[in-house]
Amino acid sequence: MRQRRIGEFELIARYFAPLAKGFPGAGGLLSDNAFLPSDARRDFVVKTDTVVAGVHFLADEKPELVAAKALRVCLSDLAAGGGEPFTYQLSLALPKSWSERWIAGFARGLAADQRRYGIVLSGGDTVTTPGPLTVTVTAFGRVRHGRGLTRAGARAGDRLFVSGTIGDGALGLLAARGRITSAALEKRYRLPQPRSALGTRLVGIASAVADVSDGLLADAGHIADASRLAVAIERERVPLSADARRVIASEPALWANVLGGGDDYELVIAVSPRKEAALLAAARLAKTKVTAIGVFARGSGVELMVSGRPVRAPRKGYVHF
Amino acid sequence: MRQRRIGEFELIARYFAPLAKGFPGAGGLLSDNAFLPSDARRDFVVKTDTVVAGVHFLADEKPELVAAKALRVCLSDLAAGGGEPFTYQLSLALPKSWSERWIAGFARGLAADQRRYGIVLSGGDTVTTPGPLTVTVTAFGRVRHGRGLTRAGARAGDRLFVSGTIGDGALGLLAARGRITSAALEKRYRLPQPRSALGTRLVGIASAVADVSDGLLADAGHIADASRLAVAIERERVPLSADARRVIASEPALWANVLGGGDDYELVIAVSPRKEAALLAAARLAKTKVTAIGVFARGSGVELMVSGRPVRAPRKGYVHF
Repeated sequence: MRQRRIGEFELIARYFAPLAKGFPGAGGLLSDNAFLPSDARRDFVVKTDTVVAGVHFLADEKPELVAAKALRVCLSDLAAGGGEPFTYQLSLALPKSWSERWIAGFARGLAADQRRYGIVLSGGDTVTTPGPLTVTVTAFGRVRHGRGLTRAGARAGDRLFVSGTIGDGALGLLAARGRITSAALEKRYRLPQPRSALGTRLVGIASAVADVSDGLLADAGHIADASRLAVAIERERVPLSADARRVIASEPALWANVLGGGDDYELVIAVSPRKEAALLAAARLAKTKVTAIGVFARGSGVELMVSGRPVRAPRKGYVHF
Repeated sequence: MRQRRIGEFELIARYFAPLAKGFPGAGGLLSDNAFLPSDARRDFVVKTDTVVAGVHFLADEKPELVAAKALRVCLSDLAAGGGEPFTYQLSLALPKSWSERWIAGFARGLAADQRRYGIVLSGGDTVTTPGPLTVTVTAFGRVRHGRGLTRAGARAGDRLFVSGTIGDGALGLLAARGRITSAALEKRYRLPQPRSALGTRLVGIASAVADVSDGLLADAGHIADASRLAVAIERERVPLSADARRVIASEPALWANVLGGGDDYELVIAVSPRKEAALLAAARLAKTKVTAIGVFARGSGVELMVSGRPVRAPRKGYVHF
């Protein structure tokens, strides 16, 4: 008989949130980021993410893509916090079979993304491990003092917007595994595109933001939970890429992957009705499409509406363990 | 035939130092810490360290001690940078066999050290891994703006001091493995004691500082290299604990472990002759013994003097891979 074990969020709430109690910028570990007071004008937005070969990326992934993924999942969180990329720390646990050629490719991937996102390495650690390749990035962004965006802050009546298209990450994983065919979706899974340009423009506009890493329903739910609200999402409004639409048309059961699968690295954004025009203007400046897909209300939980009727949400997001 | 591979320092110099080129506070990745400008008065001292079960601590180590080790190796680096502990980010990669009981012990260990060192969790990540337990800590200290201590800065004529006693960590590892017998040495290996009280007092006094994590000769050598100097160390002056003295008396070959073994988490300190009195006063305030063991001179490399004669240094420090 397998012992029931608690999940990631329960684990954090029970054991780690108490350890962050004295640190206001940790927000009870309920948001993507921590905020460190920097000076009178700015805070650091700080995010740590670990990716493990065979768990968070394919075990034989190219080193350039491993580098990009490790860095970009953190940049996506900085975007959700409204942070402008500044610097990062890198920890690399190399399997004993590491080669210099692999490292050279990994460093090339980092260098390309440093130029692309305007971020620079400031330190880290390199060790070997008898286990799989494991990369931890702690990324620092900068945001106006006290103005960093969190998951908490949505109000009843706020609309829920989402950037870009949803489901490409989860369907891309199926494509990478050969279960479906789509080069575009596969690329989307392998190489996240953090919404850095949009994120920094949401400061002063959005009331709460998260990135879609665990899945649309889960991450919208994280905003609802942290803001102590309910959120209703209309499936018809969820923006899909042409490839995702084609896949869903032939296999509607994959809606579960679209809404619950994660790895999209889009932003879910709560915005008050009187700031919607400002949001649309910010999205135009960032050259990023945003789509209204739902609304926050008193209550709790996530309600998915299909053809005007509430349905059981297919999944509660990616379960880490 | 096994392919020759480059070592950790060559790897960093060749592939990672170029990535840190635009960040002045990274110091070319030559020092323990990065320095992030915080405000006009203070910088953040930032250090990332990864520890892997079976590599950096015994695979069956108690969770409280794993927590203490993961946090304290970073606190030791903050001490070497002159940083007062402030906050940390924690990444925990759990093997699939993790238990809630283990996590509870780990969190207890963190809570105890948070109280002891005045540091508080601000965020992190939790994932599972098919490999061994892997813990990455990014610790933040605070130091007066522009006054953080690095490995670079020693001048010819500076004396080399070391805090506490040397060799207990490496001999303690032998004790933990049952090769020698000493409860005191074993405890010293399992539970590092970072020199936080001394480190913060070295600001404005020391010209360069490192912590003894790779081994006395290696870490004194890191200061010499970063400062573009040579350093000579007199073995007779190296301070030993009573237990280490006893072990060495019965097995003099273990001098190699004492000088080259690492894991002491003492500080090696370069200080100009005119600041020696200030160093001794700071050490008294920190209730920490410091001992003069050598001197910096023009040139390069580490010279070990035994009975007044230079000898081949037994080891160049712990080789990470």
